Amino acid sequence: MAQCWDYVPGGVTAPRGFRAAAVRCGIRQAEADDLGLLVCETLGTAAATFTTNRVAAAPVRWSREVIRQGRVRAAVVNSGNANACTGTQGLRDVEATAAAAARALGLEPANFLIASTGIIGHFLPVEKLVAGLPRAAAELDASLAAGERFARAIMTTDTVIKEAAVRCGIGGGASVTLGGATKGAGMIAPGMATTLTFLTTDANLERPLLLAILRRVIERTYNRISIDNHMSTNDTALCLASGLAEAPAVRARSAAARRFEAALTELCGCLARKIVADGEGAQRLVRIDVVGAPSTRAAVAVGRAIADSPLCKCALHSGDPNWGRFVSAAGYACRTLDEATTRLFIGGTLAYAGGTATDVPKAELAKEMAGREVTLRLDLGLGKAAATVWTCDLSKEYVAINADYHT
Amino acid sequence: MAQCWDYVPGGVTAPRGFRAAAVRCGIRQAEADDLGLLVCETLGTAAATFTTNRVAAAPVRWSREVIRQGRVRAAVVNSGNANACTGTQGLRDVEATAAAAARALGLEPANFLIASTGIIGHFLPVEKLVAGLPRAAAELDASLAAGERFARAIMTTDTVIKEAAVRCGIGGGASVTLGGATKGAGMIAPGMATTLTFLTTDANLERPLLLAILRRVIERTYNRISIDNHMSTNDTALCLASGLAEAPAVRARSAAARRFEAALTELCGCLARKIVADGEGAQRLVRIDVVGAPSTRAAVAVGRAIADSPLCKCALHSGDPNWGRFVSAAGYACRTLDEATTRLFIGGTLAYAGGTATDVPKAELAKEMAGREVTLRLDLGLGKAAATVWTCDLSKEYVAINADYHT
Repeated sequence: MAQCWDYVPGGVTAPRGFRAAAVRCGIRQAEADDLGLLVCETLGTAAATFTTNRVAAAPVRWSREVIRQGRVRAAVVNSGNANACTGTQGLRDVEATAAAAARALGLEPANFLIASTGIIGHFLPVEKLVAGLPRAAAELDASLAAGERFARAIMTTDTVIKEAAVRCGIGGGASVTLGGATKGAGMIAPGMATTLTFLTTDANLERPLLLAILRRVIERTYNRISIDNHMSTNDTALCLASGLAEAPAVRARSAAARRFEAALTELCGCLARKIVADGEGAQRLVRIDVVGAPSTRAAVAVGRAIADSPLCKCALHSGDPNWGRFVSAAGYACRTLDEATTRLFIGGTLAYAGGTATDVPKAELAKEMAGREVTLRLDLGLGKAAATVWTCDLSKEYVAINADYHT
Repeated sequence: MAQCWDYVPGGVTAPRGFRAAAVRCGIRQAEADDLGLLVCETLGTAAATFTTNRVAAAPVRWSREVIRQGRVRAAVVNSGNANACTGTQGLRDVEATAAAAARALGLEPANFLIASTGIIGHFLPVEKLVAGLPRAAAELDASLAAGERFARAIMTTDTVIKEAAVRCGIGGGASVTLGGATKGAGMIAPGMATTLTFLTTDANLERPLLLAILRRVIERTYNRISIDNHMSTNDTALCLASGLAEAPAVRARSAAARRFEAALTELCGCLARKIVADGEGAQRLVRIDVVGAPSTRAAVAVGRAIADSPLCKCALHSGDPNWGRFVSAAGYACRTLDEATTRLFIGGTLAYAGGTATDVPKAELAKEMAGREVTLRLDLGLGKAAATVWTCDLSKEYVAINADYHT
């Protein structure tokens, strides 16, 4: 498909019909906003995916239920406390949050998806949230700056805010806008969704179509990144569609639907890469292209084995072209791998083929690993399937961040 | 079963009928022995398990074949070079090594299992090995000191030698001795076997019985340790039985076989724990007991998820009782986990039950994580299956060792 999208400024408030706000309610110790509010002007269409972790946070359990009821039009997000492993008290705290949000905005509790991120196992200081919500409601604004403040309020160990927006021509001269904000720098592994992601659009779609597109897009983007292979208890990806674009409705199996899906894939890929690039302690963004695989599943498995091996990540950290680590990870991830047909490229340079090293000088390979971004390309020579997995390096700083982050 | 074994001094030369030697042949740059030789005086019984990595080193491919032929009675081991990803040249180098060993000892090439450990992707300096073998043959000795030198020669990033021996009463007043040497500190993950392990015994067993016992024992010991979840290309576990004990033959399905298996399980558990305790950069040995599981497979999966999570390993490193990381890892490893029935003990102290934290003060939990050895016990409350997995913490030193280890 020809490119049908272009990046535009902003994030969740770039599409028509969305207002956002952020305030400091005092859950985080840092002097930073820790409560974000995102509201759709209409009762549009909502779809979401959640963590597959059996230890699911209280807000995830609440949000699964309200998404089923089909009336979600706003999201309340706090950072600083995950409200996970908090039992029935945790659920009561979510209910109190939704009730307070409903009062502040003149809506129903079931209109609110609730998401939390932060430390596990501590009860939420819910009175701070309840006190903060009327202030957040008063600050709701459709400006791009408000969207940026929302993106900042959901950060935890993130060092940069993560938002993006694209405009997508859906055919016949009509266009829709898609925006998104996301967070995450640790506890990042592929699940059903990964981390917190808020996607907005002014396109007009029915719920089954939006959910089907969202699931496919998350599978190809967020589910193919890994920082530390530890799946969160709070992962939530929400997509809200206001339907307010001056464009016809997007129908299933139409060219418009394919274009919308291509644009959402680009947007989510961009946001997911921002997470990996900001991985805790990371210095390099690593793209792993696996091609010539017998199946997409096999290609993803090989990519993830490399992405999740501390040995591979240490080599990527030091910029050492220790290609034996990459090839041996592929060897335990793919049960049909054949050394004779396997080829590994580091950047554009062939490092391994026919079962042995090529005669490329080590210095040339090292040059390919010296940059801020590194690409590995593994051709298994077995089939036509392919997948791209994104990861980062493993540094002493990752250990420092996670050994010093005390309960 | 009542304890039927006792530890005795020594390693591979503790049982009757074994001689060992080690020399420096110059493969490693360090001033250390790098060629080990282990010989059984008789054509006894041999069994082995190997890596399941599809990228298998040349010596693994050779050794699989000679084990099938059933005439193995000696092992040649070098450190400093893995002879992996070396194609047909690698196989030729193994053949030359076996031929040289056969000449030096007046045996056949097919009598030799060959094992290598060290860097991947470099051709073996086989002329150094060939020159070293006659010197090693001349130094063969049945003393415990010779066994210790053998154990030292197979080390790579290991900081301590790893050997042990047990004597086992097999009934009727008869006893047999079992000895072992092993190596490994990185690239350690459960496979079919893990790392290099040489086990000797003077018991008299048929090959099918020895292989069946070895496979079960490796599954319960070596396959339940993980340092960095990266499976090696060179994993080999060899067990040689000389049959020279003054004891009757051990028959299948006998009390003697059960006792022999219990003793070998103890020996391999001891050797495997030595590997984890010497994990690259590690400061703590961590025992993870998973009980109340619906199946052994589920118990092992939960144990491995904790053992392989960098977030859990960083908490173990700092001694922080961040139990949410352990519980959340269990939540993505076990598809039927129920927070209501799950309990987590750190040491002897209950940290999590009924879906939330217990009211045990954090300082008390921290005390349980302060020692050189830490035990986590996760009771899933779902069934009767159990498994124990061993791992170590993740430190900045691990990153330093593996980022600085250049090709």
